Amino acid sequence: MRFRSVLSVLGFILVVVGILMSLVLPVSLYYGGSDAYALLLSALLMIVVGLLVWFFNKKQSKELGVREGFTIVGLGWVVASLFGCLPFVLSGAIPDFTDAYFETISGFTTTGATILTDIEVLPHGLLFWRSLTQWIGGLGIILLSIAILPALGVGGMQLFQAEVPGISVEKLTPRIIQTARILWMVYVLLTVVQMVLLTAGGMTLFDATCHSFTTVSTGGFSTKNASIAHYQSAYIEQVIIVFMFLAGTSFALHYRALRGELRGYSRDDEFTFYAILVVLASLIIFLGIPIESGESLGKTVQAAVFQTVSIITTTGFVTADYELWYPAAQWILLMLMFAGACTGSTAGGIKLVRILVLLKNAVNQLKMLIHPRAILPVRHNGKSLEQEIIVDVLTYFVLFVLIFVVSTLVMTTLGMDIVSSAGAVAASLGNIGPGLGSVGAVDNYAHVPLIGKWVLMFCMLTGRLEIFTIIVLFTPTFWKR
Amino acid sequence: MRFRSVLSVLGFILVVVGILMSLVLPVSLYYGGSDAYALLLSALLMIVVGLLVWFFNKKQSKELGVREGFTIVGLGWVVASLFGCLPFVLSGAIPDFTDAYFETISGFTTTGATILTDIEVLPHGLLFWRSLTQWIGGLGIILLSIAILPALGVGGMQLFQAEVPGISVEKLTPRIIQTARILWMVYVLLTVVQMVLLTAGGMTLFDATCHSFTTVSTGGFSTKNASIAHYQSAYIEQVIIVFMFLAGTSFALHYRALRGELRGYSRDDEFTFYAILVVLASLIIFLGIPIESGESLGKTVQAAVFQTVSIITTTGFVTADYELWYPAAQWILLMLMFAGACTGSTAGGIKLVRILVLLKNAVNQLKMLIHPRAILPVRHNGKSLEQEIIVDVLTYFVLFVLIFVVSTLVMTTLGMDIVSSAGAVAASLGNIGPGLGSVGAVDNYAHVPLIGKWVLMFCMLTGRLEIFTIIVLFTPTFWKR
Repeated sequence: MRFRSVLSVLGFILVVVGILMSLVLPVSLYYGGSDAYALLLSALLMIVVGLLVWFFNKKQSKELGVREGFTIVGLGWVVASLFGCLPFVLSGAIPDFTDAYFETISGFTTTGATILTDIEVLPHGLLFWRSLTQWIGGLGIILLSIAILPALGVGGMQLFQAEVPGISVEKLTPRIIQTARILWMVYVLLTVVQMVLLTAGGMTLFDATCHSFTTVSTGGFSTKNASIAHYQSAYIEQVIIVFMFLAGTSFALHYRALRGELRGYSRDDEFTFYAILVVLASLIIFLGIPIESGESLGKTVQAAVFQTVSIITTTGFVTADYELWYPAAQWILLMLMFAGACTGSTAGGIKLVRILVLLKNAVNQLKMLIHPRAILPVRHNGKSLEQEIIVDVLTYFVLFVLIFVVSTLVMTTLGMDIVSSAGAVAASLGNIGPGLGSVGAVDNYAHVPLIGKWVLMFCMLTGRLEIFTIIVLFTPTFWKR
Repeated sequence: MRFRSVLSVLGFILVVVGILMSLVLPVSLYYGGSDAYALLLSALLMIVVGLLVWFFNKKQSKELGVREGFTIVGLGWVVASLFGCLPFVLSGAIPDFTDAYFETISGFTTTGATILTDIEVLPHGLLFWRSLTQWIGGLGIILLSIAILPALGVGGMQLFQAEVPGISVEKLTPRIIQTARILWMVYVLLTVVQMVLLTAGGMTLFDATCHSFTTVSTGGFSTKNASIAHYQSAYIEQVIIVFMFLAGTSFALHYRALRGELRGYSRDDEFTFYAILVVLASLIIFLGIPIESGESLGKTVQAAVFQTVSIITTTGFVTADYELWYPAAQWILLMLMFAGACTGSTAGGIKLVRILVLLKNAVNQLKMLIHPRAILPVRHNGKSLEQEIIVDVLTYFVLFVLIFVVSTLVMTTLGMDIVSSAGAVAASLGNIGPGLGSVGAVDNYAHVPLIGKWVLMFCMLTGRLEIFTIIVLFTPTFWKR
């Protein structure tokens, strides 16, 4: 392992995130600046440490191997969160280190689980930073760095794959820097359009910005205790539904659409599956919600659609306490937490393309029971997939389930009941936020035991970096020689 | 499809099960015979119908293809249960057809879930038949037929594989009839030894026979409402622990041990994994059970071991209400319901050899992330497994999870809460019996809605016949041409 190459890149990542943090200062000052000092100090510390680490290692080769890729990505997220939680600690808003770190990892990984019992008391600068962590994490800390630093281009592909190991991430252009920039362009565009639409609906510019950040990143942090339910506005909910749905779609498809190729959506197997699932799940959930007397049908439909889209895209915004709905609604939402939305989007979870491959492979295997000598390839978007990819996807699924089972076991040994434990782990591993039981729609994670919080942080990171990247760091093979 | 060949074998199966049912008559008569008429009529009907169907189709070729194999096994279990439930209906003990069919499918598949709220009011003949269904189903209705009818030998392998599609079922001898007879011999031996030991512990011969039937088949039906807790005997519990454990071990290993090859156990990867899991799970569960004042440590240890072995072997006997234990114990037991014990045993569940292969494959895939060009085979008992077997095992796992998810969804739409729904489906699919929530250790399935009972029956059959055999019958490909 070329540790100094690793350090060089890590230093650069810190500088990038530090500069982004310093952009929060004007917001803080505008709103009184009670948190300005904490933000300034944290940003400076991050930039200075980053520059020093970078400076003393920058002469290292930028040729990064497989190991360096995984190490940079894994450590990058851990270290960025470490510095990222400083404003919360230094300002005294979240004095406990574990809690502050939990909130920041939950931010960067776009999980959206919070340990705050009262969000609205936070000063505006910190609220803004909290939303910004999700926006940075949405497309990926590393992808941002690749987009900015041309010198990273050499090892960029290695880093890119370690951060987004999804099976169908398309290279939009042969050059990885170019791809990274296109993705960020689409991302910024979505954010700005949503901001405009939300302000048009009566949201303050501050709230609109924060909620746009956390919608397009499928993060789900809100600046309000009651989440989106706070606004009691059908229009705002509709805007957010649309943008959550778009954020859960492959950004490559959006890019093509911007270039006029609108049919890309309907021709994509995963997008079609995504759209069908959303409609189907919303329908079944809707059918089970009792319509209160005097309430309009449209409002109930919207509540069902909102929660379905919020969970399948792994955003985690809440407009209703879904735990009061009938059991099937809860089960569907729990399963959607595992499923997630499309690859190449900002969503978490297993991702629908993998679910599709699992289902198609199962059908093929059943056919082969009857025709043992037939050779039936699994097809995706018209192309047949190689056997290695199938095994890779199957293994991904097994590891996802394994981490879920073991993490839930640890949570239950801490005394949390099995529904809350399984819900918390599913919501963390899938980067959703709200779970079930005592960490449900209207609850928070403050009461989770200390060790439990660390387990959930591990799940958030593992889920965000698609399992392999984090797990491989825990294998002896990785560290040999 | 050669339907008449299928009918011919089905007729024979009915005759075999009918004759076994008629053996219950003496027991019934000895205890007053209030159920003798119902048993006699049912047995006669079964034998006559069986003989007629057999007679009119017996000239058919015995060369059975893949389709015929699956059809015979799938239908064989369904039809045998249909006739098998007649004594309950005709005697009026379980007047409702769905309930009687549920109880019988639960018997033959060795699930052990009951719709009876009071078991002890049943006449002795019916209690005996109920236990006998589990004993017949333990090694398999089809395997029994193969052992008895030499003429079935030609297509026997096809049937054998359709009933026991586990990946490592060893052919103990080149001839399938011989293998079937050896397995039945080991089975009878285990049953008789347990009967002797239980009577020595003070059980009546009747109870000892019934409980031996349902222990070695890992069925779990008891003749007492309180299950094994009824006896309040440490000795009886210990005997049952040992025989549940043995029944969850590959019978091929027992056969080798009987021939003096005792080291077979420790050399078998799956058995080693099984033993480790039992010790580990018992230990973690034990640590969480509060020791009541005045109660001995040994009693608590035994309660933990009993429940662990009962669940991992998918037997489902109960000595304590495990739902009162701490959450981790419940989670472990729920996971063990999925895991099951060894292939080639009478246990249900996914089976440990598959879990082992899944884990070994995951480790290999992680290694290959670091060494992309390395070729690492998955090894089992020293031999490397072919890629097709890996894909087969992975697919099995995916289908198991899929059926679990969909079946639970149906249960929740009927209004059952998610813990009870998931528990009921897991307990049915894994052929355990008691689940969690409202179908927990001290509950029964009487209150499950009608459609729910049919879903659970489907799960029991699918689980008992290792998924593929039942699911393949629902694919269009199977019925083409």
